[in-house]
Amino acid sequence: MKIFLTYFIELILLANSFNLAAQSPSWTEVAPGVWKTVVGNPDKLDLFNAAGIKPSLEALTKMGHSQFPLSDDKIVTNVTNGQTYLRFPLVKDEQIFGFGLNFKTVHQRGKILQLHVDHYGGTDNGRTHAPVPFYVSDRGYGVFVNSSRYLTVYAGTGVRKDSREAPEPRDRNTDKKWSSQPYSDAVEILVPTSGVEIYIFAGPSALDAVRRYNLYSGGGCLPPRWGLGFTQRVPTLFNSKQVEEEAKQFAEKGFPLDFIGLEPGWQSKSYPCTFEWDKTRYPDPPAFIKTMKEMGIRLNLWTNPYVSPESPMYTKILPFTGTHTVWGGVVADLTMPEARKIMINQIDHDQVTPGVSGYKIDESDGYDRWLWPDVAVFPSGNSAEQLRQTYGLLLQKMTTDLYHEKNTRTFGLTRSSNGGGSSFPYVIYNDYYSHEDFITALINSGFSGMLWTPEMRGSKTGEEWLRRMQTVIFSPMAMINAWSSGTKPWSFPDVEKEVKEYALLRMQLMPYLYSEFAKYHFEGTPPFRGMSLEPGFDAGAKLELRNENLNENPYAEAVLREIKDQYMTGEYLLIAPLFTGQTSRKVILPKGRWYDFYTGNYAGDGEVITVSPGLEKIPVYVKDGAIIPMMKPVLQAPDAGEKYDLEIRYYGTKPGRYMLYDDDGETYDYEKGVFSWREIKVAPDKKGKPSGTISKPEKGKPDNVGVVTWKVMTIE
Amino acid sequence: MKIFLTYFIELILLANSFNLAAQSPSWTEVAPGVWKTVVGNPDKLDLFNAAGIKPSLEALTKMGHSQFPLSDDKIVTNVTNGQTYLRFPLVKDEQIFGFGLNFKTVHQRGKILQLHVDHYGGTDNGRTHAPVPFYVSDRGYGVFVNSSRYLTVYAGTGVRKDSREAPEPRDRNTDKKWSSQPYSDAVEILVPTSGVEIYIFAGPSALDAVRRYNLYSGGGCLPPRWGLGFTQRVPTLFNSKQVEEEAKQFAEKGFPLDFIGLEPGWQSKSYPCTFEWDKTRYPDPPAFIKTMKEMGIRLNLWTNPYVSPESPMYTKILPFTGTHTVWGGVVADLTMPEARKIMINQIDHDQVTPGVSGYKIDESDGYDRWLWPDVAVFPSGNSAEQLRQTYGLLLQKMTTDLYHEKNTRTFGLTRSSNGGGSSFPYVIYNDYYSHEDFITALINSGFSGMLWTPEMRGSKTGEEWLRRMQTVIFSPMAMINAWSSGTKPWSFPDVEKEVKEYALLRMQLMPYLYSEFAKYHFEGTPPFRGMSLEPGFDAGAKLELRNENLNENPYAEAVLREIKDQYMTGEYLLIAPLFTGQTSRKVILPKGRWYDFYTGNYAGDGEVITVSPGLEKIPVYVKDGAIIPMMKPVLQAPDAGEKYDLEIRYYGTKPGRYMLYDDDGETYDYEKGVFSWREIKVAPDKKGKPSGTISKPEKGKPDNVGVVTWKVMTIE
Repeated sequence: MKIFLTYFIELILLANSFNLAAQSPSWTEVAPGVWKTVVGNPDKLDLFNAAGIKPSLEALTKMGHSQFPLSDDKIVTNVTNGQTYLRFPLVKDEQIFGFGLNFKTVHQRGKILQLHVDHYGGTDNGRTHAPVPFYVSDRGYGVFVNSSRYLTVYAGTGVRKDSREAPEPRDRNTDKKWSSQPYSDAVEILVPTSGVEIYIFAGPSALDAVRRYNLYSGGGCLPPRWGLGFTQRVPTLFNSKQVEEEAKQFAEKGFPLDFIGLEPGWQSKSYPCTFEWDKTRYPDPPAFIKTMKEMGIRLNLWTNPYVSPESPMYTKILPFTGTHTVWGGVVADLTMPEARKIMINQIDHDQVTPGVSGYKIDESDGYDRWLWPDVAVFPSGNSAEQLRQTYGLLLQKMTTDLYHEKNTRTFGLTRSSNGGGSSFPYVIYNDYYSHEDFITALINSGFSGMLWTPEMRGSKTGEEWLRRMQTVIFSPMAMINAWSSGTKPWSFPDVEKEVKEYALLRMQLMPYLYSEFAKYHFEGTPPFRGMSLEPGFDAGAKLELRNENLNENPYAEAVLREIKDQYMTGEYLLIAPLFTGQTSRKVILPKGRWYDFYTGNYAGDGEVITVSPGLEKIPVYVKDGAIIPMMKPVLQAPDAGEKYDLEIRYYGTKPGRYMLYDDDGETYDYEKGVFSWREIKVAPDKKGKPSGTISKPEKGKPDNVGVVTWKVMTIE
Repeated sequence: MKIFLTYFIELILLANSFNLAAQSPSWTEVAPGVWKTVVGNPDKLDLFNAAGIKPSLEALTKMGHSQFPLSDDKIVTNVTNGQTYLRFPLVKDEQIFGFGLNFKTVHQRGKILQLHVDHYGGTDNGRTHAPVPFYVSDRGYGVFVNSSRYLTVYAGTGVRKDSREAPEPRDRNTDKKWSSQPYSDAVEILVPTSGVEIYIFAGPSALDAVRRYNLYSGGGCLPPRWGLGFTQRVPTLFNSKQVEEEAKQFAEKGFPLDFIGLEPGWQSKSYPCTFEWDKTRYPDPPAFIKTMKEMGIRLNLWTNPYVSPESPMYTKILPFTGTHTVWGGVVADLTMPEARKIMINQIDHDQVTPGVSGYKIDESDGYDRWLWPDVAVFPSGNSAEQLRQTYGLLLQKMTTDLYHEKNTRTFGLTRSSNGGGSSFPYVIYNDYYSHEDFITALINSGFSGMLWTPEMRGSKTGEEWLRRMQTVIFSPMAMINAWSSGTKPWSFPDVEKEVKEYALLRMQLMPYLYSEFAKYHFEGTPPFRGMSLEPGFDAGAKLELRNENLNENPYAEAVLREIKDQYMTGEYLLIAPLFTGQTSRKVILPKGRWYDFYTGNYAGDGEVITVSPGLEKIPVYVKDGAIIPMMKPVLQAPDAGEKYDLEIRYYGTKPGRYMLYDDDGETYDYEKGVFSWREIKVAPDKKGKPSGTISKPEKGKPDNVGVVTWKVMTIE
């Protein structure tokens, strides 16, 4: 420490620029279990204000207070030469997760990342669609760096002279234990500007820390009910007749379809975009929208944000655009209300007011060689870097606000996002197509308040098509993106039956999925998440391994490895995908009894099982006492006020409880309390047979449930 | 322009930080054909002062004055929010080269690079061992950004609204000419600090611009004569007896050997390093050095710069080290004279004074996960980023200065370098091993004042071994690096004879190579360089293609493509390597008559030829009128004052002239004028037969040439 102080005296003497001695910051509890500190002079534009977060203080208050989860004297901050240095402690055996949408890795300790919004380039190096500066520790806390800059994160790699846990140097000439990466006891972060806000989120569990982060960001999004149905994106140059025909085909073939996505060809010009209908392909948009709506189909429109000189808004928006163009389109400075207003007026007038239900906002992420360079200047004075890091947030916020004003929910796609975006009804997607990595991304999405779709585009074989279908239905958006491929769900006749079965299973699960999204909104719990967020999943495993080193403990070993191929969907379902070429796989069943989703048969308890389910099944397991509310395999989500019958499935033997959520499924009236939570309980009756009850909604609250039937799945 | 001004008024009103309106800088001619400007407030530590350059003003003056080579009103600089933006114009069809040690590409226009000293990771993205912020244009000028920061370079990718050459937007829906990367008219560079120095180097040719850059950096290095001999690096745990045995084997087998490299095991501990001999493997270093010297063998020692707690200098250097360790070793702040003095004293006392001839300085480049993080703090106040960018320069300068003080030349290896390093007697190397990419790197080294060795380590086949040998002898350092492989030149018996022949050819070429290095030093001309630096190589090709678009012009087409597999060695030799698996290749012979190096036969003139030389030959071509001074195939370079006989080869029919350089080959006395240039001329005598003359050295100047014989290679 003495040496450290000596440095700073030297620094102050030697350096030209503004210096702040390294120090432990002081923390303010801004909500129960959420602390904030301000280091130096932060930028005006940060992630939380770009996202316009409105913390769910009520929900956070319900979660209750907690102790500050870190030794705050081990948190060090320092502003030197216009840059901010942050350090957060790590302890032995600690693992951390997060930093946004990574595709290859779940464990983040030992990585160096430069968080930079970009297309994903095949390496987990921080350049991704949503490089969220938030990480969560298995010790039950989260750290968020609220910066709109390109941050460099040393996630447990740097070794300091003054570290008490600094490893002994070893001689590489002769010592076989020499390691190229000696033990590091800290996460260190470089913020390339002279200040930043930091937030710490308490647990006690890692999931609690994620929940607090999501709730502080405003709660997770609650999609419209139709958003959880099936969606198909049509080839780019389709016209209105072809789209109508496509919808008819789905109906005729009995495949579910709730919304159709139109790709660039709906616009008169694209790349850059006019933001107006192409009148040759879509001669009468309002009539077309109406026709589709009568078939029960909503429309989602692709766009990118770059404004063509031929767009009606071009002249108006030009003074509020940056110095550089993208594909010849101007780049609106969406941090300026003037720019947002002009853009939103165009899409409102032309599309939203006539009835379009949402957007797919493309190309807000990268690559560098396409987007504005970091030397671009924007009229707000915010830097090109800051615009790059926040553009996805700004686009999501702008469009979400428009729909919110109309009291109509939307559910769309975004190519980029960032910290604070939990509440936006947008799902991230990309051009990458590794099925395995898509599942890893789905797992990672749950750590950082994001939604991700492992969308289907094409496949080489029926096997691949079905394997992808089996996972996309256990994701936030069940989508085929056929903009280029022209594929349909039935494109592979050898698996058409099974594909349809899973498409319909998605519809059957809607009451469950909708309730899980409600928990995302009201409680912050991500509906899709990695095993590491399952409370108690790896609790004690390290201790067990240490104490049982003479015995085999494959479970303890398995849960400590990086798990990137199985995940939770909601409270009760464990999904274990198979990928093309696989005929069997290992599944780690957490402690507690687990049952087969399809048969109700007992599957295991705190163990690693090997399963060979056949191509027609994706392994899904259900917790003991689980209650899964399902509905009929309809082709479209119920409309507002439309009754739906429930089949309530019960698994295992433990008494069970489930909170079923309901509202109109379309408006924001739930924000005014117009929703209901109904308690479903199953417990043995006097004869020891499982018996279920469902509570009534409170008076005046939504009640859309029709006939309720019960299905006891486990027969022992 | 009006819009642009409006922005800046807004910027000045809106932004918090220091602002300087965008402007054309004013230029000062600091040497003939070299202009400098200062933008904002540059860092104290930049590349030129880290390298300690001493411009060769005399040589620059000889090159003469020139017009400022760019439209200076098209150069724009701007300091905003603590960052500096630079813009330099590009014209249609212009190509640029440089930006340091790239491995895959020679043409740099259209690239985005983040210049960052690092191990090369397989992609030309700016992270490389020597990411020099210098580029040269085929329009005959060079641009250098004298910054020790991580620069982001948009080398003709950004498109500005205010560009007069901004391309028309196209509709991607229907226009097949749509491009994801529209035409860009500028190189834009982001310097992440509030100021920078810029230099412009005039031509008229691209080679002249490179020469001016090298001369301004102090002139290229002139290695000792023995540095151009053959070198072998021995396995890491070799002891003194084994090294002596190795040297004997070379002599017995008749393979040339001038210096041997010892790898980590010569040190008592490595990674981190003690910087002292290991007394078990090297019990008596002075005696060992003496024994080797008596065999004519000099020694080069590997080290990395990280100081072990067990090094004798540890306690002394500790106060002058950064906050973070590398493999447990401390990182000296080599921008501080105190740190340099302590380190240099250790190696001087322990190694240099006893007679060690040079160093291989490893691990100064990366990876991020090994080196100090950017959050590290150094006692000088220079940032971790600046130390990273300059560490290779600082290490080269420190050791070069030590040898310079002793008036003894050194020639070593460095893992990293940067702008301004032209004069250091160090060759860059790395762990990568693609033979093709090694040649591309050799070509690129010539654009940015670097030397690079396509070192040999191992090979899968004799074919590969010989193909690598055939190129490493046409490189700055003819080396086998057997630290891990234990290979010898004769490791592949099927090609032993041919390998020896090329090793000996290297020795024969020494008078030519030494003279070419002298031209590097005195005239700035890189001894190894790409075809694009050959004056007139592609002159008029664009025009030809444009005017002859109905006829085939394969030569014009070929010279405009990226050429990364043939290069020039010195004034006259064109080297066209074959790689494993190839039995034939195309060679572009520039305009003018060319001859086969081995036979003197006519090969072609301004055309693309296809050759199938067999495994035993690497195609080498010689310019018309070329004079190649060669010596006998000795096993070691001549010592100071030792006479060597010359065989002067003459090719073609044009009258020829060559300037042969001579000095003692070991000291820096050439800086005091103790050198000679001898003019060799060949012209037809009265009977029309070629006849040669060689001038005498000036009185009192070095004269080491013994018997001169002449060899007319071309018989027509």
